[in-house]
Amino acid sequence: MSDDVIDRLVAQIQLKRHGNPETSYVAKLTARGRAKIVQKLGEEAVETVIAGMQGDRGDIVSEAADLMFHLCVLLVDAGLSMDDIRTELVRREGVSGLAEKAGRKQP
Amino acid sequence: MSDDVIDRLVAQIQLKRHGNPETSYVAKLTARGRAKIVQKLGEEAVETVIAGMQGDRGDIVSEAADLMFHLCVLLVDAGLSMDDIRTELVRREGVSGLAEKAGRKQP
Amino acid sequence: MSDDVIDRLVAQIQLKRHGNPETSYVAKLTARGRAKIVQKLGEEAVETVIAGMQGDRGDIVSEAADLMFHLCVLLVDAGLSMDDIRTELVRREGVSGLAEKAGRKQP
Amino acid sequence: MSDDVIDRLVAQIQLKRHGNPETSYVAKLTARGRAKIVQKLGEEAVETVIAGMQGDRGDIVSEAADLMFHLCVLLVDAGLSMDDIRTELVRREGVSGLAEKAGRKQP
Repeated sequence: MSDDVIDRLVAQIQLKRHGNPETSYVAKLTARGRAKIVQKLGEEAVETVIAGMQGDRGDIVSEAADLMFHLCVLLVDAGLSMDDIRTELVRREGVSGLAEKAGRKQP
Repeated sequence: MSDDVIDRLVAQIQLKRHGNPETSYVAKLTARGRAKIVQKLGEEAVETVIAGMQGDRGDIVSEAADLMFHLCVLLVDAGLSMDDIRTELVRREGVSGLAEKAGRKQP
Repeated sequence: MSDDVIDRLVAQIQLKRHGNPETSYVAKLTARGRAKIVQKLGEEAVETVIAGMQGDRGDIVSEAADLMFHLCVLLVDAGLSMDDIRTELVRREGVSGLAEKAGRKQP
Repeated sequence: MSDDVIDRLVAQIQLKRHGNPETSYVAKLTARGRAKIVQKLGEEAVETVIAGMQGDRGDIVSEAADLMFHLCVLLVDAGLSMDDIRTELVRREGVSGLAEKAGRKQP
């Protein structure tokens, strides 16, 4: 078992996603398809935005955890894991945010 | 230095946030205030939703990395770190998602 | 009664918002406060984004109607009406979008 | 010309969308495709959510006008107009929001 709960979460999602939708939230959400997964991700992001505006730290933690959870469901649904995100973040290390942004995005 | 790039990212954000807004994206964003930080978080979530719908795995990784980055900026701005999210995720381990949802949210 | 259903909708919301939360969705949502109103607005926007990606015109119409409805709930909650939005849109008429954007927003 | 600025806006968008992307924001956005249109819609919704939390009425009007504008760009891109939304809103008139919700959405 991984030491990092985020990786254990990804592993749990991989395990549960083809389980029983009656007893597993992950299986239920996965069965509803990609559009429903990203909808939930978007909704949790909206709640994180609002918690961020309200400023209650307990709420921010709770909403950020919901957001992380649904991001992991999306990653697994796309055949990815948190390690793919870490690899990308490592790639960006040492590149300043402003330079990284300039090199990547078109206005 | 932490082994986990996410924690190094949080540490970098803590270091840079009071730096020079001319050269640091984190300092620039932080100086613009909480509303701007959550706006960027929301925008990256929208891009992750769209990438999830389009299904290109490289785009999902890139947008998810942007989302993680801005989530970390919010966490640091609120005096939190990724460990606070991990603690919450550990607390939820062993609780089924459906039970956790039933116990927490009102419809 | 106004000829425009959007104005009738605003009038209905003004009428119902202090009604019985047991029988009126508007009263129920209003009673839960501003944060819940904008949360619903954000969620409907996410659903509109997804419907736009999927491209089903019936779904776009349905989600756009939900979005308009919740925008009207926010406007009324803030003591505004659709006429305030029309006034702003009239003000922008004749100004090119690129010029309007340049004059208003800082990057 | 329509009396309602929202319909004039839709007509303007229909007129400009195949125009010069160098001089028309609508043409530029349309040329970038559906994903970019819904991205902008989502971003304006995030800004409306934040303005709603901050409570400044001028900001709410400004962000709601941006949201309406980008919603119209999406409608036109999908071969729809504000009248299609009005028809849907008329259809829902007389149906209570709670009944409408119960009849339409699955949890």
